[in-house]
Amino acid sequence: MFLLNGESRHLVDVSDRGFQYGDGLFETLEVLQGTALFLDRHLQRLTEGCQRLLLPPPDWQLLQQEAQQLTANTEHGVLKIIMTRGSGGRGYRQPEPIVPTRLLSLHPYPQYPTSLQSHGIVTRFCDQLLSINPSLAGIKHLNRLEQVLARAEWRDDAIQEGLMLDNNGHVIEGTMSNLFIVKNAVLYTPALTQSGIAGIVRQLVLAFANQLALPISIQNLSKDQLLQADEVFVTNSVIGIWPVKQIAQHSFQVGEWTQRLQVMLNQARLIEVENHD
Amino acid sequence: MFLLNGESRHLVDVSDRGFQYGDGLFETLEVLQGTALFLDRHLQRLTEGCQRLLLPPPDWQLLQQEAQQLTANTEHGVLKIIMTRGSGGRGYRQPEPIVPTRLLSLHPYPQYPTSLQSHGIVTRFCDQLLSINPSLAGIKHLNRLEQVLARAEWRDDAIQEGLMLDNNGHVIEGTMSNLFIVKNAVLYTPALTQSGIAGIVRQLVLAFANQLALPISIQNLSKDQLLQADEVFVTNSVIGIWPVKQIAQHSFQVGEWTQRLQVMLNQARLIEVENHD
Repeated sequence: MFLLNGESRHLVDVSDRGFQYGDGLFETLEVLQGTALFLDRHLQRLTEGCQRLLLPPPDWQLLQQEAQQLTANTEHGVLKIIMTRGSGGRGYRQPEPIVPTRLLSLHPYPQYPTSLQSHGIVTRFCDQLLSINPSLAGIKHLNRLEQVLARAEWRDDAIQEGLMLDNNGHVIEGTMSNLFIVKNAVLYTPALTQSGIAGIVRQLVLAFANQLALPISIQNLSKDQLLQADEVFVTNSVIGIWPVKQIAQHSFQVGEWTQRLQVMLNQARLIEVENHD
Repeated sequence: MFLLNGESRHLVDVSDRGFQYGDGLFETLEVLQGTALFLDRHLQRLTEGCQRLLLPPPDWQLLQQEAQQLTANTEHGVLKIIMTRGSGGRGYRQPEPIVPTRLLSLHPYPQYPTSLQSHGIVTRFCDQLLSINPSLAGIKHLNRLEQVLARAEWRDDAIQEGLMLDNNGHVIEGTMSNLFIVKNAVLYTPALTQSGIAGIVRQLVLAFANQLALPISIQNLSKDQLLQADEVFVTNSVIGIWPVKQIAQHSFQVGEWTQRLQVMLNQARLIEVENHD
């Protein structure tokens, strides 16, 4: 199901700058019992992305209405929101005024085995590097060739995620997820000011860690630090929190902090559903 | 005028990975007297881009036919070719098999004053940096947010181009053009193995320089080297060769080497038209 600028259409003009240049942003949300989870946090990130890309701010009320319209009867699914700079302009020069294109689309929830949540996933290191660009770091923009090329490096379905490093050799994130480690009862995650996407579940995990009085360190992570971690997990809005049980040849236990954070995330998801009714 | 997968349409499915991720490539060609200039060179670059992005190679014969169909009656215009990975796949994971989307579109030739060719253009330095990524450098892919943000830095129509540096402070190219300098009768241009797009007119200029026995050095260029140049010019397939008469506060003369290369490019354009008939 699609809502393109409010209409039930799924064809966009080829002159749209999303198609021409990847000139836009997106959000991916879990839909549970008719609720698009953490919608306000996603709209906040979208708003910040618009500021960074010099796009007009999104109309929250309109997007909330359209999300509601699309997801009201969905038990479990995925909502994707795309905003682009629309059509027009001369080459790279942006049009004046900018009339953004907005697309909401509803998709089936992927059928992941529940064991991934409980027993963890297998990961690998990708050869494809993340380039460093502070002006684009953190936001969920539509220029995603690095992730596409990284994901194309393996076809083995036993491997659920690939971990990506930046040009400086820092471990940044997964192809579709943020990365956390716990070491000596401290939670570490990369800063994402130079590259990477700052996820909504990442925000939530950092808030939960505060509630648990688990100290947080947002800093560069090396491969060695990662491989010597007590616990490793990855997060995104669709998978939630997946423990990592294997990185290349290194094995990890599913840790207690990881499990506590999973419980808190599940509670927060249910509260979202309750508050929405 | 548009040809989308061979049909006269201009609407593409929103699930196309060009729209979702900027997952594709493009080419921009000048059309003169019914001829898409240097089409084979553009198809060669497109083919190389497909290899780099793990896309099936383009069908040259089909693209030649479609280009001919679209441009046959055009005195002067611009042809754009876009190839994307098509629809499908799961998230960033590419579909199997890949069924590419191809779009050919015909546009009016921009009305640039002829004085830009003869007397040169005014340029500025952009704050927006080009990120370093060897796996994407050189090819004309659809992830163009850096260029969009760079071009958004100025609105003064007296400035025709912005020059972009990479993270290491090297001058790489213009927002829409390649950059050359001449110093002490040597032609310099950046390597484009770490960032930037290797243009077709850039290829031609290097070939002309060989014919003129003008020594070539493909190397990193600093801002200082640029500002101390004897001649500066920028190139792309639509503008051809534009001398640079000003960079920020520094002035330059239109040089003799630049003029000789312009003459050679114009000859090559006319030969393209003749050979096409």
